Amino acid sequence: MRKKKSSVSALHEVEGVKQPLSTNDSSISKIKQKRREQPSESEFVTKILAGDISYLSRAITLVESTNPKHQQKSNAIIEQCLPHANKSVRIGITGVPGVGKSTFIEVFGKFYTSKGNKVAVLAIDPSSSVNKGSILGDKTRMEELVKDQNAYIRPSPSGNSLGGVAQKTRETIILCEAAGFDTIFIETVGVGQSETAVHSMVDFFLLLKLAGAGDELQGIKRGIIEMADAIVINKADENNIKQAELAKAEFARALHLYPPKESKWQPKVTTCSAFYNIGIDKIYELVQEYTSLTKVNGYFEKRRSEQNNYWLLETINQQLKTEFYTNKNVKKALKKYITDIENSKTTPFKAAQELLKLSKK
Amino acid sequence: MRKKKSSVSALHEVEGVKQPLSTNDSSISKIKQKRREQPSESEFVTKILAGDISYLSRAITLVESTNPKHQQKSNAIIEQCLPHANKSVRIGITGVPGVGKSTFIEVFGKFYTSKGNKVAVLAIDPSSSVNKGSILGDKTRMEELVKDQNAYIRPSPSGNSLGGVAQKTRETIILCEAAGFDTIFIETVGVGQSETAVHSMVDFFLLLKLAGAGDELQGIKRGIIEMADAIVINKADENNIKQAELAKAEFARALHLYPPKESKWQPKVTTCSAFYNIGIDKIYELVQEYTSLTKVNGYFEKRRSEQNNYWLLETINQQLKTEFYTNKNVKKALKKYITDIENSKTTPFKAAQELLKLSKK
Repeated sequence: MRKKKSSVSALHEVEGVKQPLSTNDSSISKIKQKRREQPSESEFVTKILAGDISYLSRAITLVESTNPKHQQKSNAIIEQCLPHANKSVRIGITGVPGVGKSTFIEVFGKFYTSKGNKVAVLAIDPSSSVNKGSILGDKTRMEELVKDQNAYIRPSPSGNSLGGVAQKTRETIILCEAAGFDTIFIETVGVGQSETAVHSMVDFFLLLKLAGAGDELQGIKRGIIEMADAIVINKADENNIKQAELAKAEFARALHLYPPKESKWQPKVTTCSAFYNIGIDKIYELVQEYTSLTKVNGYFEKRRSEQNNYWLLETINQQLKTEFYTNKNVKKALKKYITDIENSKTTPFKAAQELLKLSKK
Repeated sequence: MRKKKSSVSALHEVEGVKQPLSTNDSSISKIKQKRREQPSESEFVTKILAGDISYLSRAITLVESTNPKHQQKSNAIIEQCLPHANKSVRIGITGVPGVGKSTFIEVFGKFYTSKGNKVAVLAIDPSSSVNKGSILGDKTRMEELVKDQNAYIRPSPSGNSLGGVAQKTRETIILCEAAGFDTIFIETVGVGQSETAVHSMVDFFLLLKLAGAGDELQGIKRGIIEMADAIVINKADENNIKQAELAKAEFARALHLYPPKESKWQPKVTTCSAFYNIGIDKIYELVQEYTSLTKVNGYFEKRRSEQNNYWLLETINQQLKTEFYTNKNVKKALKKYITDIENSKTTPFKAAQELLKLSKK
């Protein structure tokens, strides 16, 4: 019994996924065997490069694990996969709930696979630690895409910090690319900070919208519109067509108010109906146009390089802050200093210097 | 003559301003004497609280000095002034060159002093280290305000980093308030990052504009409009009146597209002619309205407290980054890691972890 428990928790460690406890004795040896059989790094790499989805999934599980040993292993796998990555087009897809994102991704993904592409669908959603993996639910809705041999759908990694989730997603992209996926969709929910994170890891940013009543611009996060390379007004069908066209015109006007992008790409607005499969080809064409333009003018490569720098600096900065604010002395003194500032006993600048000194004691 | 020289070079240390070196022997003892004569901290504080402009200026010079001894002294002075500060209304004034900022500040400042207020005009402009103090030039243009007993104009502190300049400006505000100035103008040039810094140290943010030809919104930094509590269209005179009114309407429409502010203040657009002294009273009224509203609803205090927290965290964060990137080991290794990332030999995340380890060696 003791033995069993330990081996089960060993498996837990290996895969980082909760497994049901088995009470059957013979299962112990199986588990042990399984453990011995855990593929080596080079086995992982060979299989991933051969496009083996089961190994890809297991490697992503290692990436998502919080166990340091797994992280070490996944780092090694990623490092060996890196030279084979970077060859896809990464598309960020965002939109508020209700906009028809899963239907859109299903139809858009199917269009890509029908053109001979291999599509991986990932999600970034820091809140998913609460309702574990919004895409998991989506997966049941993306019936067609799930069955497609050339598509791979992976739920959002759970995590408390956006930075952590973003890191896992970035590393997952590398693994998927090494496994031969040439098109990566990264879905995000369109209501929080995660759009900025997604924007900093994709080549093309697509905003899904609905035609609403009245002022289309009201209440939209300006930053998200500014990031968009395309705004797609979904559900442009049946009685909705006229309104969708009006919304399209309004967004087009709004986009023209923004300064030109460094990519030289003029963001486009288009309509579609994912449900009736109308207008999907136009969106595919847009992405093609964009990648052609930016690959020729050098922006595509430049942006990827900038994104790498961004993540390097961002990771360092986050880590420095985490170390500082979890420092015992700082934790103890911080409140007192904030109170002192509020009571005009010290300035923020002097308090900062003193806290920095404390953090080094 | 000698006496004068020696005291001047002593002043060099005290005031942090370059002065010709004296080679005369007897001057040394004089310097020493003068040094002994340098006012004590409590002398500084007493004089500043009594509204002595000459002591105020010398204290600000200490704030701006890079000499650690001066910083220690200015810190002590600021600390004793703090309980007497915080009682002014701080107004940020921004606008691109050519908008008539100096004329506006001169006339607006005179309006304040005519109402019995005491006005200090400061500037924040990190680029002024190149053309030392844009306001210095302005000062000659603000002929009336310079002569005004109830006005104090202080050129922009020089400095390489925006953070450093911002800190000096914030500390200067405290000294001016302790000296009895109840209205602080903080001028910025309206083309760079400095607006965000100014916005984080003022109560009211005023954007000066001109009526242009065509689309008023084109090319304006959206962030700046979003920060504005009032947009003032200057030079609304002679043949310009109609265009200014059109611009006013257009800005008013644009402002309505933004989500309501936490202050519950609906940003206003108005026109004026600083040159002909038309419409200045309306702007004064706007500021009064704003402060009444936000002092009653609690936002005024809340915002100042948030600004203090912002500067505390910002200073800590900047300092952590500075320490990291000036670390010898990091400096040596950083380029190699960036190259490795570019050549797909490592990921930004792994590189970050390794650099963080190096920084602790």
